[in-house]
Amino acid sequence: MTMPITMPTRRQLLAMIGTSAGSAAMYQAMTSMGFAATSDYTGKPPPLAGARNGESVVILGAGLAGLTAAYEMRQAGYNVKVLEYQDRGGGRCWTIKGGDRFTELGGAEVTCDFETGYLNPGPWRLPIHHYAVFDYCRKLGVALEPFIMKNEKAYLHNSKAFGGTPQQIGHVETDIRGYTSELLAKSVRQGALDETVTREDQERLLEGLRGWGVLDKDYRYVKSDELGEVRGWDVLPGGGLMPEAEPSTPIAMSPLLQSGLWNDLFTFNHYNHHPALFQPVGGMGKIGDAFTRECRDLIRFNSQVVRVEQGENGVTVHYRDREGGDDILQETADWCICTIPLSVLAQMDIDVSDAKKKAIAAVPYASAFKVALEFKRRFWEEDEWIVGGISYTDLPIVQIAYPSHDLFDKGPGVLQAAYDTYTAEKNWTYTFNALDPEERIIAAREYGRRIHPQYDAEYMSGTSCAWHRVPWTLGCYGQWTEELRAEHYETLCEIDGRVVLAGEHCSHIPAWQEGAILSALDTIRRLDRRVNA
Amino acid sequence: MTMPITMPTRRQLLAMIGTSAGSAAMYQAMTSMGFAATSDYTGKPPPLAGARNGESVVILGAGLAGLTAAYEMRQAGYNVKVLEYQDRGGGRCWTIKGGDRFTELGGAEVTCDFETGYLNPGPWRLPIHHYAVFDYCRKLGVALEPFIMKNEKAYLHNSKAFGGTPQQIGHVETDIRGYTSELLAKSVRQGALDETVTREDQERLLEGLRGWGVLDKDYRYVKSDELGEVRGWDVLPGGGLMPEAEPSTPIAMSPLLQSGLWNDLFTFNHYNHHPALFQPVGGMGKIGDAFTRECRDLIRFNSQVVRVEQGENGVTVHYRDREGGDDILQETADWCICTIPLSVLAQMDIDVSDAKKKAIAAVPYASAFKVALEFKRRFWEEDEWIVGGISYTDLPIVQIAYPSHDLFDKGPGVLQAAYDTYTAEKNWTYTFNALDPEERIIAAREYGRRIHPQYDAEYMSGTSCAWHRVPWTLGCYGQWTEELRAEHYETLCEIDGRVVLAGEHCSHIPAWQEGAILSALDTIRRLDRRVNA
Repeated sequence: MTMPITMPTRRQLLAMIGTSAGSAAMYQAMTSMGFAATSDYTGKPPPLAGARNGESVVILGAGLAGLTAAYEMRQAGYNVKVLEYQDRGGGRCWTIKGGDRFTELGGAEVTCDFETGYLNPGPWRLPIHHYAVFDYCRKLGVALEPFIMKNEKAYLHNSKAFGGTPQQIGHVETDIRGYTSELLAKSVRQGALDETVTREDQERLLEGLRGWGVLDKDYRYVKSDELGEVRGWDVLPGGGLMPEAEPSTPIAMSPLLQSGLWNDLFTFNHYNHHPALFQPVGGMGKIGDAFTRECRDLIRFNSQVVRVEQGENGVTVHYRDREGGDDILQETADWCICTIPLSVLAQMDIDVSDAKKKAIAAVPYASAFKVALEFKRRFWEEDEWIVGGISYTDLPIVQIAYPSHDLFDKGPGVLQAAYDTYTAEKNWTYTFNALDPEERIIAAREYGRRIHPQYDAEYMSGTSCAWHRVPWTLGCYGQWTEELRAEHYETLCEIDGRVVLAGEHCSHIPAWQEGAILSALDTIRRLDRRVNA
Repeated sequence: MTMPITMPTRRQLLAMIGTSAGSAAMYQAMTSMGFAATSDYTGKPPPLAGARNGESVVILGAGLAGLTAAYEMRQAGYNVKVLEYQDRGGGRCWTIKGGDRFTELGGAEVTCDFETGYLNPGPWRLPIHHYAVFDYCRKLGVALEPFIMKNEKAYLHNSKAFGGTPQQIGHVETDIRGYTSELLAKSVRQGALDETVTREDQERLLEGLRGWGVLDKDYRYVKSDELGEVRGWDVLPGGGLMPEAEPSTPIAMSPLLQSGLWNDLFTFNHYNHHPALFQPVGGMGKIGDAFTRECRDLIRFNSQVVRVEQGENGVTVHYRDREGGDDILQETADWCICTIPLSVLAQMDIDVSDAKKKAIAAVPYASAFKVALEFKRRFWEEDEWIVGGISYTDLPIVQIAYPSHDLFDKGPGVLQAAYDTYTAEKNWTYTFNALDPEERIIAAREYGRRIHPQYDAEYMSGTSCAWHRVPWTLGCYGQWTEELRAEHYETLCEIDGRVVLAGEHCSHIPAWQEGAILSALDTIRRLDRRVNA
């Protein structure tokens, strides 16, 4: 406990900090970058010249793209009207709560009888670099709270590995770090990398691997108290004269590699899933609600667009009032921003170039689904101490997400009990979409109880969303490939006479709300320039 | 988009889930483990036989150990009295807010003039495996919220590397994963591990390394759009016809290794720092407040213990009323639980065995310090999108922690602007403790502005806690070594006649509230057994 001789004295310390004062300026450039340096989006809506001659615009769809455009163009003096198919705004930015009901394509009714909690059938988490979403949340007063993406207590589950026993995420990750560090240290020490890595870097590498992998003095990854401090304990360190602590035992390397559970960890490394993430308090739909509140006087709800006609001087949109019989009504404007999903738009009579029609028809829509189940108590928290986070499984439910809200509540809680979006390897969505709403719940319960047997005793009710069966979107989001983008993306986004498209499908961030908003901002920038050309 | 032929049909799916129903039972044993399997602590206080003859106990100290003991022993029928030095309960479970003032050893006054926010000078985060803390929070109605430990946007900073420019945590971590994966893949493909790893495992390893390290088809870690999806972008993917996305560029391996920033990542792997972590809404002191509320009628505040005397039939505690002059008062009881920090207790006249006295004197106390600064706006969120999390630096402030509460607020915010606890390598605490309160704030500002130049324009006020100068604890926590534990720990914890010690210093989890509570629970279990022997 003696002071090392290299420590500065108090006088030296005060002198040191004095000399450092001048160097602060050099850091200014770096830290004042904000997001400006990493995005074309500047944190503000594009400066619009505005509607100098009182130009009008009709916007089709009151989702986030449509309402972003409506909100900003009205501010710029445009005469804005929004036609929306549903009786609410927000589109896929949507939260299903107790009492909600909707009819699927095919006529089945989806019900929700949750006492508490909710399902966000579409977007459900906000990565912090989705700056436009956060800026509008700030501007519109949408309260946010942390979304817990990664939880070391949650599980990775392969029904064919470890006798079907789920493994804790923290264990798998620590063991992977440990074994890869051990093997790399071994290679370095055997000279296998002498031609690749300098001697000095090898030393740093070995030092780093020892800490990173929690290796022993011989660079081995083995059970120890030191490892317990990182991987956790079979018997936790206690107080007083409680039994001695017992560190946990690593999973053996070969079965771990063979289990494939490592692959499930990759998702946590994705930039969109880096900590910290956030969610609106009360459900994602709060963002759509806030936009709708701001634009309510501009929106005509229950308006089913059937035809978009354009001429040299304007656009005529033909639509049907869904509560007003079969009469076809008309809305005319100088310009039209159409945010209708391509899956629906492809079946509509829209007066655009053949190339754009081809682009509209070319993009398939992802067949995502979600199921949510309400339980009498939050057994994942009470029994297993999983508070927030996501478990992944090879079963068709793909994942179980634990709520990041109402944490530690004593009452009922809702799990997002199944969620898959189309991927090449695991594609359960078509199968789930083929089930009717009741069957989806049965399936989610039967698979989920293999991970949480408490399902049986604690189940209350369920709800679901199979996006291919949702009449106003017929799929979850535009599923671009590199080939499709090369061929159709620019054509899709370009202004066609007096009509221009916007939405997540007109962005490089498909499926995400940021894509919808940035698409709208770029579209109105270009449209405003065209208007004022 | 055709369905793979291996997909089950709807009929097959429903049949599949039918057959799986019976297998749920086998998972029961695993998942119903709760924490019982990983701790001697069962989620309940120990079953006490109770005070059959109305036995009394005097508890010294109203911190978490003292109040846990008081709360449980009263429930078991004991006649409980608590003597507390301060005018509040909670001890080091403490939150400093605007308006608070206290006098340090040496006479300097520490002030706090925060308009909002707070400093938790002691414990500030709750790892989920601290089950006893969570159980008492549930029982006593302490509201909890997520504590964001890791934030990819926060910085690692070495004043001597990269020209002093801080690096984002997400960048350093992704690059370390990338380079170590690349080097290990190279070793495997060169056959360096043929004798260690089977051919089949090598294949799995290579597959895993490619995903884990985001390696290209030749197993190289290089800039690419694919890497952008993991490491982030210089120009983010946008909407409509915004400029093309540009992936970020990895830091070169050699300077990264030489910078030593890798070492700063290890802290995130620590079991105590795994996600998810939590904090009480309103500051850590809320836990102490809740315990104090429950036990208020048992506590005599402002009572400075000066001597503990014991005989065959009981204990007499001599104390001074800090507001009542120099008279020495007495409290007698059948038993005494003493939770006074060893640093203070060692200077007190306590009637225990010589061996215990030696143990009391043997344990040094960690010299931790914290400084908190309030700023006019939350520039770390507004300018740099760091919402929660911690930056680490080699400067004497060691770390800057961004608040996990009142996120995205427009008003002022408080940073935990310096925090170090004694470690062998970096030991700035003695230096900081040698500064007076005003100088500590000057030092924290001068160092911090090298990471956040906004400090200059936005500073409002500061506060601090240098634990060695806090009169009622004279240090932060008991700093055990393996040698000290081997020699003194059991002696320290054992019941000595009618006196027994408790507190974080009598636990294997020093510095943590869980240690204090578990120590108390184990102590009362043993004391109750002794009483009823």
